[in-house]
Amino acid sequence: MNTDAKILRALRAAGEGTVSGAELSQKLGVSRAAIWAHIEELRELGYDIEASPHLGYRLRGVPDVLHADDLMARLEGNRIVGRDIKVFQETTSTSDVVDKLSRDGVPEGIVVFAEAQTKGRGRMGRSWVSPSGLGLWFSVLLRPRMRPQSAMQLTVAAATAVTRALRSRCSLPIGIKWPNDILVQGRKLVGILTEMSAELDSVRHLCLGVGMNINQEQRDFPRELHGLATSLRMETGEMWSRSDLAVAILKELDVEYDRIICGRFSEVVEEWARQSVTLGHPVTILVGNRKIHGRAESLDVDGALLVRTQHGHLERIVGGEVVLEKK
Amino acid sequence: MNTDAKILRALRAAGEGTVSGAELSQKLGVSRAAIWAHIEELRELGYDIEASPHLGYRLRGVPDVLHADDLMARLEGNRIVGRDIKVFQETTSTSDVVDKLSRDGVPEGIVVFAEAQTKGRGRMGRSWVSPSGLGLWFSVLLRPRMRPQSAMQLTVAAATAVTRALRSRCSLPIGIKWPNDILVQGRKLVGILTEMSAELDSVRHLCLGVGMNINQEQRDFPRELHGLATSLRMETGEMWSRSDLAVAILKELDVEYDRIICGRFSEVVEEWARQSVTLGHPVTILVGNRKIHGRAESLDVDGALLVRTQHGHLERIVGGEVVLEKK
Repeated sequence: MNTDAKILRALRAAGEGTVSGAELSQKLGVSRAAIWAHIEELRELGYDIEASPHLGYRLRGVPDVLHADDLMARLEGNRIVGRDIKVFQETTSTSDVVDKLSRDGVPEGIVVFAEAQTKGRGRMGRSWVSPSGLGLWFSVLLRPRMRPQSAMQLTVAAATAVTRALRSRCSLPIGIKWPNDILVQGRKLVGILTEMSAELDSVRHLCLGVGMNINQEQRDFPRELHGLATSLRMETGEMWSRSDLAVAILKELDVEYDRIICGRFSEVVEEWARQSVTLGHPVTILVGNRKIHGRAESLDVDGALLVRTQHGHLERIVGGEVVLEKK
Repeated sequence: MNTDAKILRALRAAGEGTVSGAELSQKLGVSRAAIWAHIEELRELGYDIEASPHLGYRLRGVPDVLHADDLMARLEGNRIVGRDIKVFQETTSTSDVVDKLSRDGVPEGIVVFAEAQTKGRGRMGRSWVSPSGLGLWFSVLLRPRMRPQSAMQLTVAAATAVTRALRSRCSLPIGIKWPNDILVQGRKLVGILTEMSAELDSVRHLCLGVGMNINQEQRDFPRELHGLATSLRMETGEMWSRSDLAVAILKELDVEYDRIICGRFSEVVEEWARQSVTLGHPVTILVGNRKIHGRAESLDVDGALLVRTQHGHLERIVGGEVVLEKK
């Protein structure tokens, strides 16, 4: 953890109280002048740090910026996810960066954020609109020992983690639509894209991309997404702290990933099922030119969707487009 | 096709005959001086081109080099495989190069050869010894529209193509061992490595890597491979032209790839089955800590191996280590 992150941690721990320069200097093993210089740097980043001559420093406000060291410090308890974090002002897609890092042999757990993506992507070559500073656009590098066909487990785990993080913060009617969307009353709030590099029988690495609409207003979305996409701000009327959400999501994701690598995917599915808007629902699934009508029954051990068709047999669905029909 | 390749094609077409400089000049639309300069260049590469003052040029011998333009010219009839070819003197792994090209959006069909690989690789993180000039080490970029679970089809197709190319040139007892090896009496002659980049339900690109031992002698192999690996030279006592083999293999691979993208994988399997040393054989398969004993029965529509276990049920195998047991 670097000095910035340590200072922020000490100030956060003090809450409404103050921490003196002398105290910080001693705790961190750097000079009071150095402390002062770091405080100035943090102020330039937008951290509102009050300094009173006798009492010391107090954290009055945190800017809505993603500060890699600060995020890492706040995720110290995580086992894998967020052990390393990089924040870019702009990139094509955070998944492109993770892909490159993976080939350089970077260990799993690194998370790459971008304030803006110029080529954010969704499933099947679709784009994901990622305007600067209004959402969370990030990708996580993972190296689970699994077969390619089980990679869907990660999408399920990520959806569960994000939903849990959101539910603990708001009472919106959030639901997971298999395989990769989180909706509020039918409108897309979060998209998850799992990509992998694999041999035929084993995953080399896996890139979990998450796009979450947070502080956009209707006008921030292109017209063709009106009515289809939404943001936390649009649903709640409030501005949200992206860094707080990032920390919450990455904590939950670490928990879910741990479940998967310990062979406890069934626990993930159990929780997923409670948040799903797909299970128990009549669905039409478009796979290539084929249409499958039926009722979504459950997930199998790989995270594939099991659909009971009109004709009574069970179809295992690993992709395609799911349309929720009226009950 | 560039001028070098066109000259070589004209000389090859003349067989034992000659082609005059005037004729080449007219055919290719370049000056006789330019023809002469290109002939000199080709000679420097090792092409043995005889020039007689009155008769013209004759191709007496071809060096064992991989000349990208010449290879491309000889593969003109191919639909996809070999539409573009790159030859490196040395690279880490030709699959690394293909991986990079794929991310740059290069169309499918490009083949990357290296005279030597410093980090040639096999399945499950193993290495593949690729000494300079003694074998064929190449990778093909493909972009089939298929699900990740069907990617095994490409390994099956490649093994079939390589075997057919070899069988038309020698009478060695060549056999395919599922999933990815071509053996001569139990010793490895060719290895195939299929790697992919994919979303959960669709392959983005696929890299088909082939390593073929050709002109090595026993001493060219590290001691730990003695008795396990072999080369065409060791089996036949002759030196082989690598470029002729490359052309033959890439022609057959183009045919097999066409079968796959046209939905005729069953034809590939039919031919594969005739060359297989695995089918009908008692096998032990090691998958992680699990051992499966049984008899290899057939391949399914994805190229997975179906094994009838001792207990009578059919197991679908997509990876692991196959050990052929004595009948």
